[in-house]
Amino acid sequence: MSKVQRATIDALMRQAPFDGSLPPERMRKDFEAQMTSGPAPAGVTVIPSVLGGRPALTVEPEGGAATGTILYFHGGAWVFGSPATALNLTAALVRRTGARAVSVDYRLAPEHPFPAAVEDGLAAYRELLDQGVPAERIVLAGESAGGALGIITLLAAREAGLPMPAAAVAFSPGLDATLSGESMTTKHDADPLFSRAELATVFAHHLAGQDPAQPLLSPALHADPAGLPPLLLQAGSNEVLLDDSTRFAARAAEAGVDVRLDVTEDVPHVFQAFEGLLDEADAALDRAGRFLTDALADADADSRR
Amino acid sequence: MSKVQRATIDALMRQAPFDGSLPPERMRKDFEAQMTSGPAPAGVTVIPSVLGGRPALTVEPEGGAATGTILYFHGGAWVFGSPATALNLTAALVRRTGARAVSVDYRLAPEHPFPAAVEDGLAAYRELLDQGVPAERIVLAGESAGGALGIITLLAAREAGLPMPAAAVAFSPGLDATLSGESMTTKHDADPLFSRAELATVFAHHLAGQDPAQPLLSPALHADPAGLPPLLLQAGSNEVLLDDSTRFAARAAEAGVDVRLDVTEDVPHVFQAFEGLLDEADAALDRAGRFLTDALADADADSRR
Repeated sequence: MSKVQRATIDALMRQAPFDGSLPPERMRKDFEAQMTSGPAPAGVTVIPSVLGGRPALTVEPEGGAATGTILYFHGGAWVFGSPATALNLTAALVRRTGARAVSVDYRLAPEHPFPAAVEDGLAAYRELLDQGVPAERIVLAGESAGGALGIITLLAAREAGLPMPAAAVAFSPGLDATLSGESMTTKHDADPLFSRAELATVFAHHLAGQDPAQPLLSPALHADPAGLPPLLLQAGSNEVLLDDSTRFAARAAEAGVDVRLDVTEDVPHVFQAFEGLLDEADAALDRAGRFLTDALADADADSRR
Repeated sequence: MSKVQRATIDALMRQAPFDGSLPPERMRKDFEAQMTSGPAPAGVTVIPSVLGGRPALTVEPEGGAATGTILYFHGGAWVFGSPATALNLTAALVRRTGARAVSVDYRLAPEHPFPAAVEDGLAAYRELLDQGVPAERIVLAGESAGGALGIITLLAAREAGLPMPAAAVAFSPGLDATLSGESMTTKHDADPLFSRAELATVFAHHLAGQDPAQPLLSPALHADPAGLPPLLLQAGSNEVLLDDSTRFAARAAEAGVDVRLDVTEDVPHVFQAFEGLLDEADAALDRAGRFLTDALADADADSRR
């Protein structure tokens, strides 16, 4: 535990809380500037690519990929963000697993509301399979809306009759577009970044007037997780989105899914992004890396049985 | 995943489902015979001891204890079980952590209903502190009712103003004496061991007519977990007690506790007891061992700050 680190990050985030009413172009520019100002991530090679008809970044571990493919989806409330803004998190998983990642620049709202992003997620997964990558050598991962997109892509892939990947990791996913979690109110003061009101404003771009009470928009409430592969949901206890993870984890457990809910106390939304600055971030990334590594190793073991 | 192993264990357990109406002495004898028939656990030395005025077994790693003390509580629905019946699980954690364990023979119902077991749990923890073991060098662990007793001991210790230990692990804890979880019905067919009716029958010994809607009897519903140390709750998806873990995990997360819910698909109550026979058991014990090791290491790091 690192009280000073946590307090510093909380104060830092409170200086620029999220404003969901900004024009999308402004949100995109600000987030891009904020997330790409540091040095390039160490230990990886980044190669522009295309997957499922969308631009992507392929992130290879130095020394060559070995153990599988991470299909990564960036965060940004379905409106902003890109593979570049998620590059540090993507690289963090690549370094810890030895797997390559392909991070997809899926279409964003308001230009492309729901279900455009889901279509792109599914197309990306389908193309990996079509390329001959075995499903059990693929894991899905993402942060925030991208973590949700990973889980929603699993649901869409299952409906499409595709084989399931080995596992999925979601950092602070938003899994309830109705924003009905108790934590929307109980964590209002503790969350340095989001509020229910700001989330409602920005999610309206993705919803575009559609009913949020649908499985692929609010899986924590309306999806049937039966048949999903092992899932790891990580969240901070200081986020209004906390109950999206606790409720989906309970729902997945109930449906017989192998699921881990991993809540770190007193840290904010996607605290893993503070790798190197916050002990809890490194520890959570270590756990996520181990989870993905184990899932890929299990797939190996199964294929030999 | 190990489908054959899981099916074998499910079939095995269905041959002798739990009968909560048997006389306590018979339950004790049967459980003792079942759990102590194998060879002595490897890699540990077992020494009879006393803690908090109760008989106990001290389980030392071969080569001597190094990193801390596991205060262990056995399972048995508050009516049966002993440190001997939990010896394999206790030794599994000792081998994985290098810590010694002290497993307490707390008082059982019906001779000693609630809160006798809680008093013994608290007395054991208090004596460890009085012996000079720093709280941050202690972790609590247990299975079934013993997993619950660990968590309840944390609550009682907090109320008593004692410092919190470094962490607690609970395997399939029963955290709701009102038996109100949805999984009581949704997992009725999947659970090869327990049913709500049998649990109600045996829990009546512990309740002895007292109101189950109390924090120390139904912490999943009525406890305030704020201030508890990091918790790991493991459960199988094939158990009627599943929701005891999912609800308490959500409650703990909401209260700002560092909590991991770790649900393994298609395995029964306290599947960790099948170490060596079920791949998922070994994997879950590895995760529990790592969690406890990390918690004790964190305590070390904190004490140097």
